[in-house]
Amino acid sequence: MGYPLAGNPTQYMVEKAFTYHQLDWRYLTIEVDPDDLADAVRGMRVMGFSGGNCADPHKEAILQHLDRLGTTAQLAGAVNCLVRDHEGLVGENTEGRAVVEAIGRRRDPTGKAAVVFGAGPMARAVAVELARAKVGQIVVVNRTEAPAAALVRLLEKELQTAASVAVPQTDYALPEETDLLVNATSIGQDDPEARLPLDFSTLGHNTLVADVIFEPPRTHLIRHAERRGCETIDGLEILVTQAAINFKLWTGMQPEAAVMYEAAEEFLEI
Amino acid sequence: MGYPLAGNPTQYMVEKAFTYHQLDWRYLTIEVDPDDLADAVRGMRVMGFSGGNCADPHKEAILQHLDRLGTTAQLAGAVNCLVRDHEGLVGENTEGRAVVEAIGRRRDPTGKAAVVFGAGPMARAVAVELARAKVGQIVVVNRTEAPAAALVRLLEKELQTAASVAVPQTDYALPEETDLLVNATSIGQDDPEARLPLDFSTLGHNTLVADVIFEPPRTHLIRHAERRGCETIDGLEILVTQAAINFKLWTGMQPEAAVMYEAAEEFLEI
Repeated sequence: MGYPLAGNPTQYMVEKAFTYHQLDWRYLTIEVDPDDLADAVRGMRVMGFSGGNCADPHKEAILQHLDRLGTTAQLAGAVNCLVRDHEGLVGENTEGRAVVEAIGRRRDPTGKAAVVFGAGPMARAVAVELARAKVGQIVVVNRTEAPAAALVRLLEKELQTAASVAVPQTDYALPEETDLLVNATSIGQDDPEARLPLDFSTLGHNTLVADVIFEPPRTHLIRHAERRGCETIDGLEILVTQAAINFKLWTGMQPEAAVMYEAAEEFLEI
Repeated sequence: MGYPLAGNPTQYMVEKAFTYHQLDWRYLTIEVDPDDLADAVRGMRVMGFSGGNCADPHKEAILQHLDRLGTTAQLAGAVNCLVRDHEGLVGENTEGRAVVEAIGRRRDPTGKAAVVFGAGPMARAVAVELARAKVGQIVVVNRTEAPAAALVRLLEKELQTAASVAVPQTDYALPEETDLLVNATSIGQDDPEARLPLDFSTLGHNTLVADVIFEPPRTHLIRHAERRGCETIDGLEILVTQAAINFKLWTGMQPEAAVMYEAAEEFLEI
């Protein structure tokens, strides 16, 4: 459920995995007007949905309609994944988990210095999961201070993680020892030339760079990070990782990632 | 939407037709508890469903949740098909239309003498459509008098069709000149030996015999009618005809009937 949702490959990807694993399930792409969210959730319940995804602008508003929240969803105040269990409808957040899982394939995040761009629902989920994965410190870089400061307080108080705010007036200069850089803003979406307010000359080749934007996956950030010799994680890998986590939550089965990856690439014509 | 719905081939059949016609649509089999019907309809509305089917026990209760009713649905007081149009959610009844369409493939119903077994939602829909197709007279045969008498009054008053009630104490003897006989009860469902209270010796070989039961399609009635030399219409043909009518209402497209027929047979392992 989102509004709007055109161009999202998730349905195609998840249904290919249902078919591959011979599950007689359906995944629907449903546009729900913000005014209708309560009725849509009520409908999901009585129609026996086993779960679902929740995209903008519903990620925060949906919290009040659920029976229970997973830890990250509760801390980040945002839900992207709904799961029915015996007690009711549970709100989870798997967006940050997907980023951290993709990072974990390359490096152990324990004790690392991370920089996260953004302070919205996605950035909160990423920062919370990085903190839960025991990174050493997090800088939250955002255009406006208030939401970044709120996130930093959350990281410090609830997750005992060193954190600070940066509100760059011009391009942000990365701290020298940055191990992980994550773009968790919408900068780059549908625009391969859109650039983060980042001083790319400060980006060292040891920094692992992740970008949540999957359309297009080769964002300005990803391309420039590669040019500087950085290892990168694009939004497509994060999207597939997230869909696989969701699939496991709904069905109890670990899906074949290659099937989902191919489906996403086919859908996005990459 | 129904409760319960196991064993119904409609989803399989309709989705095969979607695939065949390259429509990126889904048809879901959704069990809805009677207490949850209002929420389910509300959910359908805000989730943008283009239509749906409505089975027992919701066919009558759903009327109050809809914006408008088709003529037959209104007269029969029962809805089996939901269609969204620009004004809202419209309740249609296509069950009788399917029976009459199947009859029309074989004979012109105008002026014919019909006998309908049953007085429930399905029988009402069949009788109303027979009347709208200008049959000459209808006998409603039912175990209890009140609902049959109500249906007869409806046929006479609203549709100006000669009609009478029969409440057989033993096996019903068909009037000699019966042209059409329709079983619109649930007798025969899941039980190939269940028999109508009908004196089969009175069944002439000129009578066209239709049975709405599709599981199994070769009911006691169909087998015995064939033995007596009657032309027959089984419930599978009626089910496929009905699904094709619904498909057209939802999508505006006439589906390939052979695709739906094959799918239904495959599902029912016939």
